[in-house]
Amino acid sequence: MQGLIQHYPLTTNAILEFGNRVFHHKRIISHLPGGERHEYTFGDMYLRTKQLANALHDRLGIERGDMVGTFAWNHGPHVELYYGISGIGAVCHTINIRLSAPQIEYIINHSEDKVVFVDATLVPLLERIAPQLETVRHYVLLHAPADFQTTLPNTLHYEDLLAEQPDEYEWPDIDENEACGMCYTSGTTGLPKGVLYSHRSTYLHAMTILSPNAANIDANDVTLLVVPQFHVMAWGYPYLCLLAGSDMVMPSSNLQPAALIKIIQQEGVTTANGVPTIWLGVYQELKKNPPAEPLTLREYVVGGSALPKSLIRGFEDDFGIRGVHAWGMTETSPLGTISRLQRKHERLSQEEQLTIRAKQGIAFPGVELRVVGEDGTAVPRDGKEMGELQVRGAWTISSYFKTLNKESFTADGWFRTGDVSTIDADGYMEIKDRTKDLIKSGGEWISSVALESALMAHPRVREAAVVAIPDDKWIERPLASVVLLDATEPVTEKELADFLSTDFVSYQIPRDYVFLQEVPKTSVGKFDKKEIRRQYAEGTLG
Amino acid sequence: MQGLIQHYPLTTNAILEFGNRVFHHKRIISHLPGGERHEYTFGDMYLRTKQLANALHDRLGIERGDMVGTFAWNHGPHVELYYGISGIGAVCHTINIRLSAPQIEYIINHSEDKVVFVDATLVPLLERIAPQLETVRHYVLLHAPADFQTTLPNTLHYEDLLAEQPDEYEWPDIDENEACGMCYTSGTTGLPKGVLYSHRSTYLHAMTILSPNAANIDANDVTLLVVPQFHVMAWGYPYLCLLAGSDMVMPSSNLQPAALIKIIQQEGVTTANGVPTIWLGVYQELKKNPPAEPLTLREYVVGGSALPKSLIRGFEDDFGIRGVHAWGMTETSPLGTISRLQRKHERLSQEEQLTIRAKQGIAFPGVELRVVGEDGTAVPRDGKEMGELQVRGAWTISSYFKTLNKESFTADGWFRTGDVSTIDADGYMEIKDRTKDLIKSGGEWISSVALESALMAHPRVREAAVVAIPDDKWIERPLASVVLLDATEPVTEKELADFLSTDFVSYQIPRDYVFLQEVPKTSVGKFDKKEIRRQYAEGTLG
Repeated sequence: MQGLIQHYPLTTNAILEFGNRVFHHKRIISHLPGGERHEYTFGDMYLRTKQLANALHDRLGIERGDMVGTFAWNHGPHVELYYGISGIGAVCHTINIRLSAPQIEYIINHSEDKVVFVDATLVPLLERIAPQLETVRHYVLLHAPADFQTTLPNTLHYEDLLAEQPDEYEWPDIDENEACGMCYTSGTTGLPKGVLYSHRSTYLHAMTILSPNAANIDANDVTLLVVPQFHVMAWGYPYLCLLAGSDMVMPSSNLQPAALIKIIQQEGVTTANGVPTIWLGVYQELKKNPPAEPLTLREYVVGGSALPKSLIRGFEDDFGIRGVHAWGMTETSPLGTISRLQRKHERLSQEEQLTIRAKQGIAFPGVELRVVGEDGTAVPRDGKEMGELQVRGAWTISSYFKTLNKESFTADGWFRTGDVSTIDADGYMEIKDRTKDLIKSGGEWISSVALESALMAHPRVREAAVVAIPDDKWIERPLASVVLLDATEPVTEKELADFLSTDFVSYQIPRDYVFLQEVPKTSVGKFDKKEIRRQYAEGTLG
Repeated sequence: MQGLIQHYPLTTNAILEFGNRVFHHKRIISHLPGGERHEYTFGDMYLRTKQLANALHDRLGIERGDMVGTFAWNHGPHVELYYGISGIGAVCHTINIRLSAPQIEYIINHSEDKVVFVDATLVPLLERIAPQLETVRHYVLLHAPADFQTTLPNTLHYEDLLAEQPDEYEWPDIDENEACGMCYTSGTTGLPKGVLYSHRSTYLHAMTILSPNAANIDANDVTLLVVPQFHVMAWGYPYLCLLAGSDMVMPSSNLQPAALIKIIQQEGVTTANGVPTIWLGVYQELKKNPPAEPLTLREYVVGGSALPKSLIRGFEDDFGIRGVHAWGMTETSPLGTISRLQRKHERLSQEEQLTIRAKQGIAFPGVELRVVGEDGTAVPRDGKEMGELQVRGAWTISSYFKTLNKESFTADGWFRTGDVSTIDADGYMEIKDRTKDLIKSGGEWISSVALESALMAHPRVREAAVVAIPDDKWIERPLASVVLLDATEPVTEKELADFLSTDFVSYQIPRDYVFLQEVPKTSVGKFDKKEIRRQYAEGTLG
């Protein structure tokens, strides 16, 4: 028997219309690449989204299901693009500006983008590859001065495009399972792969992530969106801020620690997100130049890489700001888990609590996790036994765009993350490693992530990445690449090994250390272990 | 183009499986009708739900789409019934125990319940009508002693039924648009009408109501479910507590103010819900017998009738407990709006803030409101112009069960609430009256709800209900029925009229007052204005 409830598709239009109807007075504040500050309301943005919809349809010839690319930082117009493109039933393809030129060329051709919206400051990156782009009919320039010079063909100025359009537009009926957005994986292990989000998955992800057990965002918040809009739909924050009625602060390229701190102070930011590297930088800057008044920032949600215990502790003890560890992947929209303490943890010591908070945490409603051992069955939920993390749920992919990639899915339809993890009796999941980064030394597994996290707790270490290197006796052994906080205060290999010996047994502790100026990173800011291993093999590391 | 996301139906089984997987250690604490306390975990409940599923299917012959009735207070087994019945694809029909015997007979026959699960203490209510029930094949007794005597035919004991079943059961695949629950309206204006909720509407409602702008419930909460499970699925709380990982405290029939306070103290309750009458009683009891220590209760969410300003102020000033005003109807699952302050309200006076908090508030994502004037167009959003409130959304009904009731829906598919309301520029909706309770005196509208709220702010008034009575000159005029806090401290009519004159102009102020022992109430605890008008017409009021 069917329930007698109204048909109400979960679409980005439902989010946009809600944001305008109920929270039209909430603000979107952009700190633009040139340093200029721009502020307007959800209501203003809404009208421009309708102008954009008219322009896409009437001026640019975009049809239902067409791909439209964006190549831009976080700012108001990029929010308009999220809603305007998906609003007419096209797909907003956010292109990662940090990919290599050949990768960008590949994904624009592969996705068949008809139009690309590009920030003026990023135009040089596209000019190099434009001759090879086969499907792009127009480039629309964002924040470009009127006399802007470019070799890109068929350019239009975004503001001109909007100015000539009416701000009335009736959204088409959209099936909630239609695609609304696309993002390619960063492709560290091969060609980038496209992930095609649906309206429904986007709505459900955003509605879940704003909940108190997750990012906990409401109409009293001022949210700083540090995660770039070109990276997994900015973790859904451009959607959830409209659902929650939170002011949005968009930093564009102002991502240097001092710039972010200034924005937090100026706008009264209460909550934010980002990868650990960003927040490590902010913490170190705050230590160097302590603020005159406590920051309004209540907490920051971290994902993308493991949040080290030492950073959680430092931020909280020194500045009263809570770090909240989350986990996800491009293939999971991205957020799948978060680590917050529960009532039963109150009786634990601070150190024990930190150990839980440094885990990736518990799954959200709509996300299912299982950890599968080498024998193909689920490992015990004891927090010790490791296995491959597999996921299914309401915002997990069923396949990649234009490719089956069967090896990424199990026979019963779960997505294989390629992460090695444990899960404990209370459902707290902990990533121990990427499958390919796990070190097997003398038949025993060593977690590179655990070693990195411990090394980064050393007071004179800024960053540390651990990889497996070949060993005649043990097959593999760990190598630590270490960046010091201050090159004038060196640390010996023995000091680091001794420091690790409180938490690790001797066979797990690296004997080899390389001191670097910087750890090589991927386009999304993660440690590039493939590159470290390559440099080690070539003898050029350090 | 379709998104490439996994198929993941939003069902009560998805909620139950999540609650068991992630929050199996959370507790359901029942204070049973006899006073006994029972505690178990989500994990325990989960296994019993599977035993129940087997019993429903194998022992009681319940098939997909069948109606199964419950006639019970709030407690663990009633939660099992919510999940177990809908889990196998049947429909959990919660029967309002406070309806009259003819109404109960009508709805059980109308819904065609195959089995009714009934609390032992409520059996006498059913015994009287059992001979007229045409479809009920079995009655299952909850909390009945082994030697329980009843004239009900074909009775089984719930615990025996479960004990003989295995705790393994594979849930069937359920389409999220299938029905999972049914509740009849209280039928104050005619025969009760059935509202058939879907799995999807139940999931989306619960996931939205736990959010920070709404009930704001998370894994650190201990939630007291005062709203009966026989009333609009207990406002979705049995579902959202599993999604949020909140402990659930079920008071069954222990709803007297002193009993509720004792439960709050004993269990460390942090959040709760209920109709205003309940919380008015709790407040007055706390005033009479102030607790030795502050209560752990952070806030209570009120709906069903207007939450008077005076109660919000008293609770907060005297005990530091926040009253949060919400609005909804059986036809809207029920919750549609809630009133919380936003950042922009911080600069307002306490009185101005209270005025906003006493409104019904802003809509949730998934709910759309419009206020339509007599000319059929939307009234201005100025907080002044009144019109009929109409709703549509993801958990609003499209029709009633087995009846079209076309007059309840507009031509374009919105549900007509029968409430008269205003909406302001920020989207805060305020119910001014039921369409049928609005008073039109000398051509001017008078809001009975506003008068009641003002009268209840008088320090010597406990309750007040205002209705229209016929008037030779003005067609209608207001009549106030007043219940005093203490009969030994009377108030004169002039004192009340003077008290109202600060907020109302003279034509709006009642000249007629009746002092009662108690205001007549409906089965769901609302003022029964039809009954007051009837008694007035018969000359038996007071």
